[in-house]
Amino acid sequence: MTTRREHDLLGDKDVPADAYWGVHTARARENFPITGTTLAAYPHLIEALAAVKEAAARANAELGLLDPGIADAIAAACREIREGALHGEFVVDVIQGGAGTSTNMNANEVIANRALELLGHAKGDYHVVHPNEHVNLGQSTNDAYPTAVNVATIIAVRQLSEAMIVLEKAFAAKAVEFHDVLKMGRTQLQDAVPMTLGQEFGTYAVMLGEDRQRLGEAVALLHEINLGATAIGTGLNAAPGYAEAACRHLRESTGLPVVTAADLVEATQDCGAFVHLSGVLKRIAVKLSKSCNDLRLLSSGPRAGLNEINLPPVQAGSSIMPGKINPVIPEVVNQVAFEVIGNDVTVTMAAEAGQLQLNAFEPIILHSLSESITHLGAACRTLAEKCVSGITANVDVMRGYVENSIGLVTALNPSIGYAAATEIAKEALATGRGVAELVVEKGLIPAEELARLLRPETLARAN
Amino acid sequence: MTTRREHDLLGDKDVPADAYWGVHTARARENFPITGTTLAAYPHLIEALAAVKEAAARANAELGLLDPGIADAIAAACREIREGALHGEFVVDVIQGGAGTSTNMNANEVIANRALELLGHAKGDYHVVHPNEHVNLGQSTNDAYPTAVNVATIIAVRQLSEAMIVLEKAFAAKAVEFHDVLKMGRTQLQDAVPMTLGQEFGTYAVMLGEDRQRLGEAVALLHEINLGATAIGTGLNAAPGYAEAACRHLRESTGLPVVTAADLVEATQDCGAFVHLSGVLKRIAVKLSKSCNDLRLLSSGPRAGLNEINLPPVQAGSSIMPGKINPVIPEVVNQVAFEVIGNDVTVTMAAEAGQLQLNAFEPIILHSLSESITHLGAACRTLAEKCVSGITANVDVMRGYVENSIGLVTALNPSIGYAAATEIAKEALATGRGVAELVVEKGLIPAEELARLLRPETLARAN
Amino acid sequence: MTTRREHDLLGDKDVPADAYWGVHTARARENFPITGTTLAAYPHLIEALAAVKEAAARANAELGLLDPGIADAIAAACREIREGALHGEFVVDVIQGGAGTSTNMNANEVIANRALELLGHAKGDYHVVHPNEHVNLGQSTNDAYPTAVNVATIIAVRQLSEAMIVLEKAFAAKAVEFHDVLKMGRTQLQDAVPMTLGQEFGTYAVMLGEDRQRLGEAVALLHEINLGATAIGTGLNAAPGYAEAACRHLRESTGLPVVTAADLVEATQDCGAFVHLSGVLKRIAVKLSKSCNDLRLLSSGPRAGLNEINLPPVQAGSSIMPGKINPVIPEVVNQVAFEVIGNDVTVTMAAEAGQLQLNAFEPIILHSLSESITHLGAACRTLAEKCVSGITANVDVMRGYVENSIGLVTALNPSIGYAAATEIAKEALATGRGVAELVVEKGLIPAEELARLLRPETLARAN
Amino acid sequence: MTTRREHDLLGDKDVPADAYWGVHTARARENFPITGTTLAAYPHLIEALAAVKEAAARANAELGLLDPGIADAIAAACREIREGALHGEFVVDVIQGGAGTSTNMNANEVIANRALELLGHAKGDYHVVHPNEHVNLGQSTNDAYPTAVNVATIIAVRQLSEAMIVLEKAFAAKAVEFHDVLKMGRTQLQDAVPMTLGQEFGTYAVMLGEDRQRLGEAVALLHEINLGATAIGTGLNAAPGYAEAACRHLRESTGLPVVTAADLVEATQDCGAFVHLSGVLKRIAVKLSKSCNDLRLLSSGPRAGLNEINLPPVQAGSSIMPGKINPVIPEVVNQVAFEVIGNDVTVTMAAEAGQLQLNAFEPIILHSLSESITHLGAACRTLAEKCVSGITANVDVMRGYVENSIGLVTALNPSIGYAAATEIAKEALATGRGVAELVVEKGLIPAEELARLLRPETLARAN
Repeated sequence: MTTRREHDLLGDKDVPADAYWGVHTARARENFPITGTTLAAYPHLIEALAAVKEAAARANAELGLLDPGIADAIAAACREIREGALHGEFVVDVIQGGAGTSTNMNANEVIANRALELLGHAKGDYHVVHPNEHVNLGQSTNDAYPTAVNVATIIAVRQLSEAMIVLEKAFAAKAVEFHDVLKMGRTQLQDAVPMTLGQEFGTYAVMLGEDRQRLGEAVALLHEINLGATAIGTGLNAAPGYAEAACRHLRESTGLPVVTAADLVEATQDCGAFVHLSGVLKRIAVKLSKSCNDLRLLSSGPRAGLNEINLPPVQAGSSIMPGKINPVIPEVVNQVAFEVIGNDVTVTMAAEAGQLQLNAFEPIILHSLSESITHLGAACRTLAEKCVSGITANVDVMRGYVENSIGLVTALNPSIGYAAATEIAKEALATGRGVAELVVEKGLIPAEELARLLRPETLARAN
Repeated sequence: MTTRREHDLLGDKDVPADAYWGVHTARARENFPITGTTLAAYPHLIEALAAVKEAAARANAELGLLDPGIADAIAAACREIREGALHGEFVVDVIQGGAGTSTNMNANEVIANRALELLGHAKGDYHVVHPNEHVNLGQSTNDAYPTAVNVATIIAVRQLSEAMIVLEKAFAAKAVEFHDVLKMGRTQLQDAVPMTLGQEFGTYAVMLGEDRQRLGEAVALLHEINLGATAIGTGLNAAPGYAEAACRHLRESTGLPVVTAADLVEATQDCGAFVHLSGVLKRIAVKLSKSCNDLRLLSSGPRAGLNEINLPPVQAGSSIMPGKINPVIPEVVNQVAFEVIGNDVTVTMAAEAGQLQLNAFEPIILHSLSESITHLGAACRTLAEKCVSGITANVDVMRGYVENSIGLVTALNPSIGYAAATEIAKEALATGRGVAELVVEKGLIPAEELARLLRPETLARAN
Repeated sequence: MTTRREHDLLGDKDVPADAYWGVHTARARENFPITGTTLAAYPHLIEALAAVKEAAARANAELGLLDPGIADAIAAACREIREGALHGEFVVDVIQGGAGTSTNMNANEVIANRALELLGHAKGDYHVVHPNEHVNLGQSTNDAYPTAVNVATIIAVRQLSEAMIVLEKAFAAKAVEFHDVLKMGRTQLQDAVPMTLGQEFGTYAVMLGEDRQRLGEAVALLHEINLGATAIGTGLNAAPGYAEAACRHLRESTGLPVVTAADLVEATQDCGAFVHLSGVLKRIAVKLSKSCNDLRLLSSGPRAGLNEINLPPVQAGSSIMPGKINPVIPEVVNQVAFEVIGNDVTVTMAAEAGQLQLNAFEPIILHSLSESITHLGAACRTLAEKCVSGITANVDVMRGYVENSIGLVTALNPSIGYAAATEIAKEALATGRGVAELVVEKGLIPAEELARLLRPETLARAN
Repeated sequence: MTTRREHDLLGDKDVPADAYWGVHTARARENFPITGTTLAAYPHLIEALAAVKEAAARANAELGLLDPGIADAIAAACREIREGALHGEFVVDVIQGGAGTSTNMNANEVIANRALELLGHAKGDYHVVHPNEHVNLGQSTNDAYPTAVNVATIIAVRQLSEAMIVLEKAFAAKAVEFHDVLKMGRTQLQDAVPMTLGQEFGTYAVMLGEDRQRLGEAVALLHEINLGATAIGTGLNAAPGYAEAACRHLRESTGLPVVTAADLVEATQDCGAFVHLSGVLKRIAVKLSKSCNDLRLLSSGPRAGLNEINLPPVQAGSSIMPGKINPVIPEVVNQVAFEVIGNDVTVTMAAEAGQLQLNAFEPIILHSLSESITHLGAACRTLAEKCVSGITANVDVMRGYVENSIGLVTALNPSIGYAAATEIAKEALATGRGVAELVVEKGLIPAEELARLLRPETLARAN
């Protein structure tokens, strides 16, 4: 392998001649052989880093701190990366020590070398464009990296939000489709009182809508960035006006309404917004999992289960039981939910472990959040497209449950009182007879009045 | 023991003659011998239940469904309970099955019997005032209980919020007091660049303020109540106009801006707002714990630690090491934080376990939230009053660290470049000499220019 | 209030004249106003502390370090406490800072003052019997407290283990009772293949038995104690022979096979055994919760659910739905399980937060473990006595499911092959007809051979 | 793309002609577009599946149920896979619904097609070798998959155990190297009493050794397999003698002491062993994290921190602060620990969610465990090789702390009493003077006696 020699605080080191990354990245690759998955797994982060570096270069040029030619070359390199180029050059492991320094330096090195190429220089000619002195100018890992994480997360959450809308619409469509399908409502898995299947599915849509609102509020907190804070928030080494200019360029270039945090010392060490977002992702996971539990329960059977709905078959269910179809799509969503809930604990611990002026554990926070966001998005789309949109109702089964139910007696409470109703319920249960039959037989309610009370529209009135 | 005989679905049962609670409560006491702690541990919940029952009675009277005399007696009994009476009659265990039915029935029975007394009847004369047919009229556990839980939680969170303000002010006062105390900032526990101790304490105040905002947003979600939903949200058995009237009476009587949820089926089964609140409590816990970790670290020593600040001694620290003073107040706050973080997992699991039209596990959600809220409040006040307000600074120690630090070299980056600065840092580290000394000696920066660059005001400029 | 004046590192302080606790306890009460629950909630711990103090006094006397008269008085006071006396004098909050110092000092003070009384002296005459110099002689909080926590936990776990046996037997009895009740097995909530209800209940018994074995292994780790380690494990201030003697006395007095840890420095800071135990408690909680989920599912209905078994009714299930009986006992067990799982996270965080030579957060570890152990024990007994032992089977319902099932076709796989079986299953599902009928009709298997293949004994053969 | 047409319960579907996987896998790929990571990420699982299929084929041949030629071809295909071939053909997503069915079918299809090739047939000629009827003969996903998961996990844990030994040895070597380096022990971050740096490092080695023992016990539980259970543990469709024969072949072929579980119904639904293992992995993570926290704390500085030890520099620490070296290796280990702790919650939730005769969520359990095991192993090796083995001690700094400490007074307790010692400590603290100096000055201990008491060997005696 042809190599070029680079140099850093620790001495000389050879890197592959054609690598855009340099000595820092080379050491980091060796230092963190943890997961085998590289930063290339986070396209949003790579593109956000490039956006930050581009904004910084433009701000530095504007303030006269960076040669315009170099700034242009850096910006051009960043643009390419933002359009998808060179992602394969981000080779550090996703789980890494150093508070993101290696990720930041990987970006600095790739951008410097690509800028060098664009200027007609060889890779490694850092006296022309230097990863630290030019690309990282006015920045620290401790402001550039969190800012990029924020930007990347905002974009990722938008995609999740879109996936949630797809699922919400799928549930809402079923709510309309099933609006007049009468069924028994259940509390504590015991027969309760009647409702419609449309109400049941409508609930899932409403839940998702509320979750989406919370997600929007949570991600809004990430619009506060600490670019210009440098190492600990005091802005040491950043020129006056730099923070404002860099934020402005980032805002314009990304189209995101990012603003500089009011207290940069606080913003540099605080992981509150990540903990908050993770908590909201967990909330979404909890609800999704509950909804999938319901879908699996309602479709249980076909003969020894509730059998109220049918999930569309998407694969043979068993390697041994012929004809068995399993609720594999809800099951995969449940599992994503469990993962997200576990990730929330990881994020919590990482955030709590921050010390003094910095949280060194942002890489695992990013990793966990990124996993949760993308997997939840995939889960929502899959659930909508492979399952919810194809659900059908076993209308007769559900109507049979209602007519056979003891819960009907609840509707007679106002007419005959709780105590008499209780006696009827007990007798129905003991004898296997129907509630309606018993009430009329005992002369508690005349038959025609009873018919009126037990009309589906009355029983399952929408509120 | 004198007893009176009561009757329910399961048959006859004797209860103590002087007990305000009745047969349902008696069975529940026997069924849930789990913690030994009774509902009396939740004064907010008991008072909120009474407020709900009062509002329901007034609404029922207004709609002509309940005799005004009975409604008044019920309301009077509720008022007494809201003022602190009869809390000892709430005897069911805090961890209980049944989705809160036993708590709701405990309230129904105590209120019915107290109303009977007020009307001149004996306890147990339920043909006059009946726990179910009068006190619970138009309600189900599934709407009365969650509504009371919401109201109780809103009140509890207000108290937490006040405690957070006390702590926030204590930190802010120290930020002012220490605004000109220069010290080394640290990242990854390594010497970074200078800042002031005031900035450090200001950060804790800002964090708390942000957390308090999030808490306010989270608790606002609880203003949506499902009173009128009855069993599953379809409002079966609740009269037209009842939900609106009961909500109005509850709003007026509590002064809280509660509103009826738009979708009562959804509202009756959804625990999203609790999961959300728990997530925010966890966020507060994470930040408090981080702040306490910092306080313990900064006050480590006195001779083999950082020794930058002194926590006020509040008790002898050791049963064996004379003179040892330990950071016991931050330590107790850390432990509350760990408890809150664990409780969040409990709430998460309970919320995820909801099935179909109801979550049967609200009692443990209430229990966990209640514990987290009150313990966090106590922790905040204790931290403020027993610790933060008495913290003093070891100004000379901190200044010594700054003058002795290698991190100073960062401030020279813009003047001499990253590479030269690195060399200076390495030499300082190797020789034990000072950065300033070396820079002048090597002629990199003239002495007077150096003095200007290294002024504390310059180094630790507030952003 | 009459008071006596005591003195410590921080100065003078009055305590109630009749209090057995002294100045340290007085300060600790004020310092930790967190939960309102005092150490009196942990009788096992109080008794274990007394056992440790008694063992230490006897060891010190044996080594000639403590006047035999004082040692006897201390031992006598400890005996009283171990028999239940003076528990009300343990007044420090259960959540406290200081690594257990306040708990240890509360014990030292109560024991010293009771010993003084026994010797005919007034409380507070510490020149005769001193909390630190006599009761705590040769000890530190850092060895006395963890040793007591170990002893208390061992006792508590024994009681849990007994409760588990009660539940295990209840399940096993049902396994026998239901050994010939044929039913459909279900996987992924879909009808699978036949089995017996006895097999289903047997599984719960086997699971509990395995969990109990793991619990025994986990608690065995607690037999290693660090008494004699003093502050950090170096045994500073403990006389030669003291660790051995104190351990021997503790072993004899408690009857527990405690041994001195091989590496006292390690033992003093390590919380591994607690994390391990907590993990096993979580494992038990997971299984119990799963079993209760099953019980609730199998008893769902009565008419719109599986309705395979009936849980004994223990209370009316609803304040609005007459005749409704809910699975309140499994529900309360689920909630305990969620609490235990949350507590495990608390223990994990507290253990991870240990620093250098000590974990200062043992009080919350003790608190969480104690809660988990006692609540799990109560849950097991309650589940056994109030639920499992009264479960009845709906034999006809279950047989109906089997006869009606499509899963029967699996049993024909070996005879007709997976592909043909799949076609039969599809046709049965589409037409609503029975598998057996179709197989014979299509001439795939002769009727008599089919009858043999479908005998219950064949289908649900126990392995 | 050339394709071949396959057929299943859902109808026809084309698969790439050169794919070894077939129709089931094709559907599963489309059904689970969740993570983008395929089963190829689990080489241990793929090889274990092949071992299970080989054992089943041999057992079936032995019992006369499978043509020897087909059995040999299947076994040969399995052998190739076990040696690393065809892993790229395992293309289903790692997070998948269906309780592992898709993983099992992916294996069945790849093995069938490779066996077909070996027999000179075209891929897809399933009438010769059929994925279900031959490769899966006598098995269900519900026994084949968990058995493979057990085998894969046992192998993975062995590798983790080896990595732990490497780290344990690195710590132990430092314990020897630093056996006479005196330093202050610290409790609650406050100066306590003296010890040696060797004792400190020895602790980390001992902890790891204990953890490794627990790991060995946990993994031993996985030797119980349920092969032969088929769908729910009743062994339906498995021939008499099959379970025994398949287990024997698996034992011989893997060299692992696997045994058939005593109760196959229980074994098929129980995830206890996974929860247990996950709990032990969490325990390891807690201890590793604590050790890394200590390393980061002890190496804090260099000038404004404890500065007791130096971690070997492995990369430049900052993109802005020249000369800064950060503890990046311990930091990455902390992050792996946080991940493992979060994964434990995921495993817990997945295990709790099992229903009736099966836990459908084993894929996420496998995923989480696999991640935890491999990342912990990588973390241990990295910590050993990149950090611990290069740690050096700042002997003079540590000795200075001891000589300057107030904790020394503890050693004088036995000579002068706790009360006098307390006064000395207070005076030393107030005046900044040394303890030894004050004791002699006040005539409490003669100088030569004092010297004896304060000898390092005495102070930090190993127990």
